[in-house]
Amino acid sequence: MSEVRLNVITGDWVIIATERAKRPEDFTHKKEKKDIPRYVTTCPFCPGNEDKTPGETFKLTGNDGEWSVRAVPNKFSALTPDGDVKRIRVDFKQFITGVGLHEVIIETPEHNMTTALLPLHQIEQILLAYRNRLFAFYKDPRIEHVVIFKNHGEGAGTSLEHPHSQIVGTPVFPGQVMNRLGEALRNYYYVNFGECLYCTYLADEVKDNVRIISENNSFISFVPYAAHSPFHVWIFPKRHCACFGEITDSELSDLAVMLKDSLLRFYIGLDNPDFNYMIRSLSPRGADSKYFHWYIAIIPRVSQTAGFELGTGMNINTALPEESAKFLRGVKLS
Amino acid sequence: MSEVRLNVITGDWVIIATERAKRPEDFTHKKEKKDIPRYVTTCPFCPGNEDKTPGETFKLTGNDGEWSVRAVPNKFSALTPDGDVKRIRVDFKQFITGVGLHEVIIETPEHNMTTALLPLHQIEQILLAYRNRLFAFYKDPRIEHVVIFKNHGEGAGTSLEHPHSQIVGTPVFPGQVMNRLGEALRNYYYVNFGECLYCTYLADEVKDNVRIISENNSFISFVPYAAHSPFHVWIFPKRHCACFGEITDSELSDLAVMLKDSLLRFYIGLDNPDFNYMIRSLSPRGADSKYFHWYIAIIPRVSQTAGFELGTGMNINTALPEESAKFLRGVKLS
Repeated sequence: MSEVRLNVITGDWVIIATERAKRPEDFTHKKEKKDIPRYVTTCPFCPGNEDKTPGETFKLTGNDGEWSVRAVPNKFSALTPDGDVKRIRVDFKQFITGVGLHEVIIETPEHNMTTALLPLHQIEQILLAYRNRLFAFYKDPRIEHVVIFKNHGEGAGTSLEHPHSQIVGTPVFPGQVMNRLGEALRNYYYVNFGECLYCTYLADEVKDNVRIISENNSFISFVPYAAHSPFHVWIFPKRHCACFGEITDSELSDLAVMLKDSLLRFYIGLDNPDFNYMIRSLSPRGADSKYFHWYIAIIPRVSQTAGFELGTGMNINTALPEESAKFLRGVKLS
Repeated sequence: MSEVRLNVITGDWVIIATERAKRPEDFTHKKEKKDIPRYVTTCPFCPGNEDKTPGETFKLTGNDGEWSVRAVPNKFSALTPDGDVKRIRVDFKQFITGVGLHEVIIETPEHNMTTALLPLHQIEQILLAYRNRLFAFYKDPRIEHVVIFKNHGEGAGTSLEHPHSQIVGTPVFPGQVMNRLGEALRNYYYVNFGECLYCTYLADEVKDNVRIISENNSFISFVPYAAHSPFHVWIFPKRHCACFGEITDSELSDLAVMLKDSLLRFYIGLDNPDFNYMIRSLSPRGADSKYFHWYIAIIPRVSQTAGFELGTGMNINTALPEESAKFLRGVKLS
């Protein structure tokens, strides 16, 4: 019989459809391999086209003296970097002026690369850029919340091939994040008598040891007990902290290893699926929170949401989390 | 400048990206027209194949004496109709046995039909089936919540061509619905001093008269002020009631007119897009709720969610709701 599992972190119930569960291999979509060139003259993210993007806000340089990672304002930002935050309310029409920050992190000069295949030091540089831009964004008093994310492939919402991630600062604190904070706080007090929900939940996953994928000094990756969708992976830092920006240099190196490990398991095991990842974090102002805990969620886009999910907010996961984890753990990385 | 609008019904902030807003026509995807036959011998929903579905739970008959609408258990249900609801909790692993009801409403005997083009009396019969199955589902004491929905097209999560909708009864009350109830209740008390949020919000939409699409005796369709995505349409009943099942016969006829009107505007104006619709309703036990109000949401799948939406729960709508409504209002229906 299927199980309706509670995701204690998100507060959502998930239907784990064990009886019609697919095998891990069934989620692989063989895509036509395209022959993508290393540099594309029309790509605004390729070297030589630096003037096709707005001026860079951050840059790291490789051994060759050329840039290795660049952060630039998003030319097609949904929010405007200039102007004041104004809150206007007339009857039921309440809005905030669309002020905000939106940058693109160009992850490598090489157009045909994919994040999973980048060398570790390059992934470290990407994470360094994330950390730098997170602090820079939060220095702007108009910004209430910052999210860092990556869209890989058309099914994940991007049509740009050149590897990149994005960072957005909004003038409002998102309701979803507020709800998660609520879950964390409620469970902090009532379930765990003063311990961080994430810390104790992670300890429980480690004790079970059936959904863990990888572990190193600072991070653990796993498919959560009530994963919302097939191969949904969480990377949790072992050290309790509410803000990604507070990551130390040695943790950052460990995170690069863990992120590459996770993405490589997708790339090899699921044949380069479309995916999103997101860093869920509070601001540096909230870094000392005892009850929130930053983490990374990686979601391969191998299933489709439909009316049931839209109408209830509940997901149906047709892959047993224990099987997904076992499959990902078994992927041969070399 | 863009606006970050608050959807007072869902409690979500939505970025209305006015500056990079697309024109309504840009959302149309010209699809290859397939020549679909009226009957398909291998389709389990076509006449003559009644034995390929589990036994029907409800049926309506046309003038020719043959069935016109059938409800049958879903052969590939994610939940099991037999068994007890058990709630089990071990450490952080909390689940409910996957007991529930899941039926398919076969909307017409004709395989190549589409709901928008069905005659009104046929759409009335579909709604009658919805009403009957909703009451039947809620009679089962194991069912906590029921959702009725339709997935049209692959982009909306179905690969079955034969027109059908679905009804699912879950053994748990979904967190998302609980959050909406919370919004309704909070606004009922604090914003409106004892009036239903939905009733007063609808009155405000009518007063503004810039996002309304259609109106009849019992229903109003409109693109909400803070629509989550392009051409997101809500159909609100004018009479306050929390449960769809309490719809009267004359209201049901009016709803058939309104649903056909909305779907036809999509079909003609946006060239038969993939879409989902969902009926958001409480149970008949909660029908007298003063603060919840049932309604239908119709969502054409013309945009893609990505890491920003997943990571914040906020949507970016690249169509101005006022423009979407104007476009849909202007579609020539004959």
